[in-house]
Amino acid sequence: MAVNNRQRLRDIDNTGFGANSSVEGGRILNPDGTANLRKRGIPFWERISIYHTLLRMKPAHFILMVFLFYTTVNLIFASGYFFIGVESLGVEQGGGLFEQFLEAFFFSSQTLTTVGYGHMAPRGIPANIVASTESLVGILSFAVVTGLIYGRFSRPRAYLLFSPSLLIAPYKEGKALMLRMATYKNNHLTDAEAGLTLALHVKENGKTVTKFYPLKLEIEKINSMALSWTLVHAINEDSPLYNYSKEDVAEARMELIVMVKAFDDHFSNMVQQRTSYTYQQVVYGAKFLPMFERGQSGGYTLLELNKINAHELVQLPETVQNTAV
Amino acid sequence: MAVNNRQRLRDIDNTGFGANSSVEGGRILNPDGTANLRKRGIPFWERISIYHTLLRMKPAHFILMVFLFYTTVNLIFASGYFFIGVESLGVEQGGGLFEQFLEAFFFSSQTLTTVGYGHMAPRGIPANIVASTESLVGILSFAVVTGLIYGRFSRPRAYLLFSPSLLIAPYKEGKALMLRMATYKNNHLTDAEAGLTLALHVKENGKTVTKFYPLKLEIEKINSMALSWTLVHAINEDSPLYNYSKEDVAEARMELIVMVKAFDDHFSNMVQQRTSYTYQQVVYGAKFLPMFERGQSGGYTLLELNKINAHELVQLPETVQNTAV
Amino acid sequence: MAVNNRQRLRDIDNTGFGANSSVEGGRILNPDGTANLRKRGIPFWERISIYHTLLRMKPAHFILMVFLFYTTVNLIFASGYFFIGVESLGVEQGGGLFEQFLEAFFFSSQTLTTVGYGHMAPRGIPANIVASTESLVGILSFAVVTGLIYGRFSRPRAYLLFSPSLLIAPYKEGKALMLRMATYKNNHLTDAEAGLTLALHVKENGKTVTKFYPLKLEIEKINSMALSWTLVHAINEDSPLYNYSKEDVAEARMELIVMVKAFDDHFSNMVQQRTSYTYQQVVYGAKFLPMFERGQSGGYTLLELNKINAHELVQLPETVQNTAV
Amino acid sequence: MAVNNRQRLRDIDNTGFGANSSVEGGRILNPDGTANLRKRGIPFWERISIYHTLLRMKPAHFILMVFLFYTTVNLIFASGYFFIGVESLGVEQGGGLFEQFLEAFFFSSQTLTTVGYGHMAPRGIPANIVASTESLVGILSFAVVTGLIYGRFSRPRAYLLFSPSLLIAPYKEGKALMLRMATYKNNHLTDAEAGLTLALHVKENGKTVTKFYPLKLEIEKINSMALSWTLVHAINEDSPLYNYSKEDVAEARMELIVMVKAFDDHFSNMVQQRTSYTYQQVVYGAKFLPMFERGQSGGYTLLELNKINAHELVQLPETVQNTAV
Repeated sequence: MAVNNRQRLRDIDNTGFGANSSVEGGRILNPDGTANLRKRGIPFWERISIYHTLLRMKPAHFILMVFLFYTTVNLIFASGYFFIGVESLGVEQGGGLFEQFLEAFFFSSQTLTTVGYGHMAPRGIPANIVASTESLVGILSFAVVTGLIYGRFSRPRAYLLFSPSLLIAPYKEGKALMLRMATYKNNHLTDAEAGLTLALHVKENGKTVTKFYPLKLEIEKINSMALSWTLVHAINEDSPLYNYSKEDVAEARMELIVMVKAFDDHFSNMVQQRTSYTYQQVVYGAKFLPMFERGQSGGYTLLELNKINAHELVQLPETVQNTAV
Repeated sequence: MAVNNRQRLRDIDNTGFGANSSVEGGRILNPDGTANLRKRGIPFWERISIYHTLLRMKPAHFILMVFLFYTTVNLIFASGYFFIGVESLGVEQGGGLFEQFLEAFFFSSQTLTTVGYGHMAPRGIPANIVASTESLVGILSFAVVTGLIYGRFSRPRAYLLFSPSLLIAPYKEGKALMLRMATYKNNHLTDAEAGLTLALHVKENGKTVTKFYPLKLEIEKINSMALSWTLVHAINEDSPLYNYSKEDVAEARMELIVMVKAFDDHFSNMVQQRTSYTYQQVVYGAKFLPMFERGQSGGYTLLELNKINAHELVQLPETVQNTAV
Repeated sequence: MAVNNRQRLRDIDNTGFGANSSVEGGRILNPDGTANLRKRGIPFWERISIYHTLLRMKPAHFILMVFLFYTTVNLIFASGYFFIGVESLGVEQGGGLFEQFLEAFFFSSQTLTTVGYGHMAPRGIPANIVASTESLVGILSFAVVTGLIYGRFSRPRAYLLFSPSLLIAPYKEGKALMLRMATYKNNHLTDAEAGLTLALHVKENGKTVTKFYPLKLEIEKINSMALSWTLVHAINEDSPLYNYSKEDVAEARMELIVMVKAFDDHFSNMVQQRTSYTYQQVVYGAKFLPMFERGQSGGYTLLELNKINAHELVQLPETVQNTAV
Repeated sequence: MAVNNRQRLRDIDNTGFGANSSVEGGRILNPDGTANLRKRGIPFWERISIYHTLLRMKPAHFILMVFLFYTTVNLIFASGYFFIGVESLGVEQGGGLFEQFLEAFFFSSQTLTTVGYGHMAPRGIPANIVASTESLVGILSFAVVTGLIYGRFSRPRAYLLFSPSLLIAPYKEGKALMLRMATYKNNHLTDAEAGLTLALHVKENGKTVTKFYPLKLEIEKINSMALSWTLVHAINEDSPLYNYSKEDVAEARMELIVMVKAFDDHFSNMVQQRTSYTYQQVVYGAKFLPMFERGQSGGYTLLELNKINAHELVQLPETVQNTAV
């Protein structure tokens, strides 16, 4: 019967994911919105965008990368000065080899960062050429780092927090699929638009194929996303989930792809965020509790972000599952 | 009767502000267009975007922040050099502790900014490691500052000036709600589009709820916003304000949300600006005076920005308030 | 009769320029597309965007501004060192006051640019505080300059060249208004869209008012603007220029506002360019000559930008001016 | 007969390429999507955008340009110091002219990069003026380079890989033109949109003219371009290629212009990529092999980019070429 309804509704083939793209147990999108996909067949360096990898890296990793780069470049140039001989840096020849290498290393760092104290300074052509090259390399490298830091800062992001649970809640006469989101930073989204795509892995002629269905939202566009926004998909005759039981959902390893687009006036740019829910995240018979409150005194609205998933269990209306159609 | 008209018109639920989001006496949007809202429930550092806070800070505050940061970082590294001992900077051991700390502080500032005069310079491994680290920290910090300064400069903004008053003016046979705006910088907006949303706090079944209504504009899109633009909403049978008296407006604590979008050719980007008017800003029976003038000699138009709110009181047409519908 | 046609056509009031915005003899837009407008009534510094003024300045002026700024800042700090006394820079007290000021000036420039040779270096608290401040000011100033230089480079522009003349050319059975444009840089515009607005200054009830009419284009959108694009407005019964003689055009001080929007794949951004033609630029009875050529050998198309205005005089078809309608 | 079909279909004139723009044997677009076009008639420096030329240059060439620039500027300033005399840099007068020039060169590089060791430092007014200017030039130049490096990094690009071959494959009852593409970097495109324009060089009244036809796609918009996307144009009665033989295609020197637009969430920006296929790239009777695979264990999809052109030869359905219409 569930099948009847699904067959009546047309699945869509313009999701870009392909009917046989999903493996046993593998999801289509990861929770962070990236595709659960690997690429191969062309060299690693051509396959990744270093810029974007560095842009999306965690701050601590990024700082570590910069320190590693700084140390490596200094080691390379220090070796150069060491082989030329530290006396050409104006250093008296005393001290062991390790001390000499350290002097070369510190001179290198003074040149790379263009500090150039001058108590060590290159003398003679070879040391001067290396130092001249190193100061240029320093400036260019730090230009790259400056660009990366700015790029990391200014990367437009939606900063959306999604409720970890997907609720099947009572709605009007029947029930609805609900999820909730809110912006968690001091940004302001306008003209926000959401879209839900349902993926079901079903057997067709003995082969497992993935079918995609757009899910209609009660409200799919809002002017301003100042508070939280609950996406509501009514499970009625026009829904591919109509008469679809908890077991059907699990068997089809249901996955719900959520896509939100909005205009962010911080960045004056379109921002997008995606996420995906799997059937394990569905809570049957629950409704969201309000997450904003009237201020006691100040005259403002208080949005409590830790209540993004706050819900209470409720009785679902009697489904017509076994009698309908 | 006012109620009749409002009930006939559908209120909208896609404003994103929610029916019960507004507190007693609290407005929905602040005059600067930000939502009158606070967030809580997740840690402060996750809740704010430092980048955007620094971007939207007043120039004087931003410069102060940079100086504070500079001084703090110097104090930290100066402490380092001080504990290692200033003699490892090549400073003769004379002078008290305070003088020694000052020497360390100035050496630190010379290293952080990569000036590196060299009359003080690090000697020995500990001082060299601290100095090498500090010059890297300096370059990275100033990369951040460079990015912030560029971000502050290049942030797309509409630079719109709104009339502080909202006029109820005679218009055609009846009356209209009017407000005026103009760009106050040497920027040029094209394809400008405006939208008005009216918020009324009304009693429904003994509970105060907020209802939102879009207000139709006579002209809602203009090709070019070179001069001033007066937004005109005719208060006729299709307006939620029809037959709504001054007292009704105050009782419902009317708030008018204004949203303007345009393409700015300075930034080659969409820009948005919002503002909000409360019922206290309404002037009944007034019309705007022209704010641009023909030049005496030069052959150009002169826009007088100090006249943005210039209006004169006029007689409103007899309202049909007590006889209609 | 001309008037008949104009009255039959609706003029538009959403151009943003206003019916009485234009003065005797003053044009609405300047040839470079900026509005012929001045603003006053708020302080100069609030009225202009310094960033955008510096962004749109000619390269030579911009470089001059940077040099002036560099010299001024150096003079200010040099005065500081001079009053503290150049002996605190490690300079021997010999030489006159002018020589001392020069030493202070050169030390200042070494500090501002963070070169810091070190043969002069600050000694004592006052000189150190000034030097420490100056090196910070230097870094921040050059951060601003770096941002401005990047902003100048990366400002999206359409780089369109317009034909200086507006032709009235034979077209199909009748005639048409034509102008030609081409991109003159190695940029590539796609999805280009053009719009023409005609402004006529006409007498109405004894008062001169400005009427605006959109002019219909034969092709108003092209996929790719690789070669030249000739905008063609057929002067037929639906045109406000139908039966409008050369004298009518001059009397109404006709102005034609041209607006082009496109997507530029250099900048991956929308770009816009505007220009304006006055009635003096109209050439009656002429048609454009081709401006691209088949290459002799290489197998490419050659676009000759110096032929943007190339046209030959031709006979216009007999107008039906004195007999029609 | 082929001609019959083409004449029945309207060709389009809004491609921006012009009917007689193409030379004998010359293609319209290059494979990299740039127009096969040269411009002349205005000075070289006005005709190219230096910024964009440097932005699109290969990395190796860009680095070479920076090194050349660095060396050239150093040579110029070194000449200045050399003519003033290296003794004004604090260098002892020993050594030949070449040694002196080298000293001047190395001092110049220390000043340009603002390293400023100080064992050489300017003395006297002429040397100080040159050094003060050079350090400013250095900072400004490296500001330019920083901007260019950031611009190179952050330039929005689609990173699309196209199949080198254009297949004529069996499709439904008939056949279809197919090409395949995939993103080869770790970027994610959403709301992707493709358009095909066919160019045919045909004889009309004895003159060769270029006709353009839009080709209808089975799916022209997809939500997400995570995997590969095969563009399919069915060659049916509504196609300008219907009943067009291999020989016709070659005679008309068919060229297929492909344009893809999408929203990239790395850049939060629209990206575009174009390419063009010529008739030599057409493979008659072939179909693409799948290029993604189910992972053995990990639970993800594997996209094999080296299979972008993988196809096998197949029998095409009997064409109705000689009997139809």
